[in-house]
Amino acid sequence: MISSNITRNNAGVVCFAGHSVAALAEEYGTPLYLMDEERLRSNCRMYLNAFATHFGPGSRVLYAAKACSFKEIFRIAAEEGMGLDTVSIGEAYTALAAGFPAERIYFHGDAKTDKDIRFALEHGLGCVVADNPDELALLNAEAKRLGIRQKVLLRITPGIDPHTYEAVNTGTVDVKFGVPIETGQAEAFVRAAMAMEHLDAAGLHCHVGSEVFDEDVFQRTCDVMVDFMARVHGSLGFTARELDLGGGYGVRYVDSDPAADIPARIGEVAAHLRALVDRAGLPMPYVLMEPGRSIVADAGMTVYTVSTVKRIPRCKNYVIVDGGMADNPRWCLYRARYTVLHGLRQDGETDVFDLAGRCCESGDVIQPAVTLPADVCRGDLVCVCTTGAYNYSMASNYNRLGRPPVVMLSGDGARLAVRRETPEDLIALDL
Amino acid sequence: MISSNITRNNAGVVCFAGHSVAALAEEYGTPLYLMDEERLRSNCRMYLNAFATHFGPGSRVLYAAKACSFKEIFRIAAEEGMGLDTVSIGEAYTALAAGFPAERIYFHGDAKTDKDIRFALEHGLGCVVADNPDELALLNAEAKRLGIRQKVLLRITPGIDPHTYEAVNTGTVDVKFGVPIETGQAEAFVRAAMAMEHLDAAGLHCHVGSEVFDEDVFQRTCDVMVDFMARVHGSLGFTARELDLGGGYGVRYVDSDPAADIPARIGEVAAHLRALVDRAGLPMPYVLMEPGRSIVADAGMTVYTVSTVKRIPRCKNYVIVDGGMADNPRWCLYRARYTVLHGLRQDGETDVFDLAGRCCESGDVIQPAVTLPADVCRGDLVCVCTTGAYNYSMASNYNRLGRPPVVMLSGDGARLAVRRETPEDLIALDL
Repeated sequence: MISSNITRNNAGVVCFAGHSVAALAEEYGTPLYLMDEERLRSNCRMYLNAFATHFGPGSRVLYAAKACSFKEIFRIAAEEGMGLDTVSIGEAYTALAAGFPAERIYFHGDAKTDKDIRFALEHGLGCVVADNPDELALLNAEAKRLGIRQKVLLRITPGIDPHTYEAVNTGTVDVKFGVPIETGQAEAFVRAAMAMEHLDAAGLHCHVGSEVFDEDVFQRTCDVMVDFMARVHGSLGFTARELDLGGGYGVRYVDSDPAADIPARIGEVAAHLRALVDRAGLPMPYVLMEPGRSIVADAGMTVYTVSTVKRIPRCKNYVIVDGGMADNPRWCLYRARYTVLHGLRQDGETDVFDLAGRCCESGDVIQPAVTLPADVCRGDLVCVCTTGAYNYSMASNYNRLGRPPVVMLSGDGARLAVRRETPEDLIALDL
Repeated sequence: MISSNITRNNAGVVCFAGHSVAALAEEYGTPLYLMDEERLRSNCRMYLNAFATHFGPGSRVLYAAKACSFKEIFRIAAEEGMGLDTVSIGEAYTALAAGFPAERIYFHGDAKTDKDIRFALEHGLGCVVADNPDELALLNAEAKRLGIRQKVLLRITPGIDPHTYEAVNTGTVDVKFGVPIETGQAEAFVRAAMAMEHLDAAGLHCHVGSEVFDEDVFQRTCDVMVDFMARVHGSLGFTARELDLGGGYGVRYVDSDPAADIPARIGEVAAHLRALVDRAGLPMPYVLMEPGRSIVADAGMTVYTVSTVKRIPRCKNYVIVDGGMADNPRWCLYRARYTVLHGLRQDGETDVFDLAGRCCESGDVIQPAVTLPADVCRGDLVCVCTTGAYNYSMASNYNRLGRPPVVMLSGDGARLAVRRETPEDLIALDL
């Protein structure tokens, strides 16, 4: 199985976190998002323990809320001691409503509105990551109005291409986030921040991609960032107390994906960074990372019911289910790979099918060319694995479909974390 | 301008349906969906008048709800005398809540659940389009349970490739919808439907693509369908009283897109079809079409506020706005083209920018390479034209962003049709 929390019972039924998907589908209906609480917690602990071991107190793991956000997931992340990376009022509001400590919430975004800035500061969010110089004056003015000194990190573009993870000599990398080093703009950005009386520029933020598999991406990022830290230490007397490396490690969607030993990798990053700052004569900063996908992806699974099977001679076979691009747009958007299982059996002859959705659009495919039992038919269950990240959070009401519920699974049983969206809910905003 | 309902006033401000976008942004905030009621109504009338002229009474124009669905749009479509093409309980429920006559609602979908079928029949929807043989027995059983005879259309795959609009000799076209002719399955499908005591198989449905520009796609579809109608008339004694041609005509998103004379085209289709059925000795069927995009696209516009402008030397410039792929995922999904205007001015020097969104994802681009005034800056307004179709209906809460409101514009003023989604709304489903 693609993840150790997926098994089959003696009857051949898929079990997720030890719970039969047949029983869950019966109780909650389909389509259905499942979430494995223990896996969620153990993924948090993996990062937290590695950070405690290699970086010590003061460093922090921020859960990237955009991967999957609802109140229960924030409650669990808060209990585990995670910080939170938010990018909107909606994410921060949800976290606060779930009791997430404001002090541990970081507020990001490349396009903060005046309202965003007001919300973040009025609600005492621990840190705002300033993306660009436009934001500094606004943050400073708002902090002044509230009579506070707001902690900020400054988002720097380290000049490593997020698509290839290659350092680009000119530093002119095509990203919409942050301020580039090579052009001198980053240094000016730091100087401007230091001049803001009501801002505490605590450090730097950078981010080179969200699905890091390459052995040394974070190390190369550290190379560039420590070089910059040394430069502004010398030129401006600026000391970065915090260094947020952004991102997180990749996850396995299909068997051919590599498996990352995340704690070991974090140890390597820590050793590399420590050597760099020692050599540069800088104090070791508190380090932050922002994993989202690697916290929630393998804690999630989606269960569908087959509506019909179509065999188009000399062309293709389709299994069509009761969900689709409205609850999982990732194949449509990114041609994302997933492992797909028949929920009820695996024996016997197999065939290859495109797993298509119910949206009235020929492109509504969840995953092409999946292998399923040849006798798959209406009423069967199909499980799409590793859907914890960027499925619920990207879901739409396309075709006016209500979003599926999220059921949280633990040793104590199953419980609704997000209820199913009803037709009544769908017209709540309509006048 | 790309559409005649877009103008600029003396101050250079974009006006949509005669309303200043600056005033609307001030009153309703941004991002903001605007909808031009008069254009919506005149697009309906264009189809309805052409149908009245060329097909006469009994033929019907169904608004494809998936293009944009909320109560007010259904009220307007109902007033104009449109029928409705729905694909989910959510769409049908919304239409019924808006007072849309059930008798004029058609229920589609390639993956109807048991619940869908029950809902459609219990609510007296005028017609169900049966997509595949799996559905016939379920529809018949439900109709029997309710003691009714349900009108159905049978969805046939005419063997014209929706991507190229080319007829495929083998009929083995890669579509997940309907039942193919060439394999003999379509004839068996008709036979099965005729045997269902509680179903009235009123006719046939086909659909070869949703953005028809080619001169004669509908004509070629008629060629194939009348040939099939003649065959099953002979072999089974089946007479198709209705022929639903599906789809609708394309719209102009950018200046280089062709303009279709839709009424003239409908006249050509009618003449062609009449000649075909005359030659085959069949009665002229009532004809249906299902335009969505060409009803609402140019009735829509989206207004954003600029958050920041980034110039990456030797690379690219970005204008980043307060919306993005959460309210318009069509560039991300389809590389869809749009015309983009500065909302406040057009004079002076220009520059080329990627119009990017606020989502925390480098791929969040609304439209690449748009020309805007070189001095565009934070606080300016940007208008994306022709967003009435597949923007609101495909919007998500990605990054936990609330969906923008829809403001309906008419000669009488502006009024909210869908209110803005608040942070409180976003946690309504969370336990």
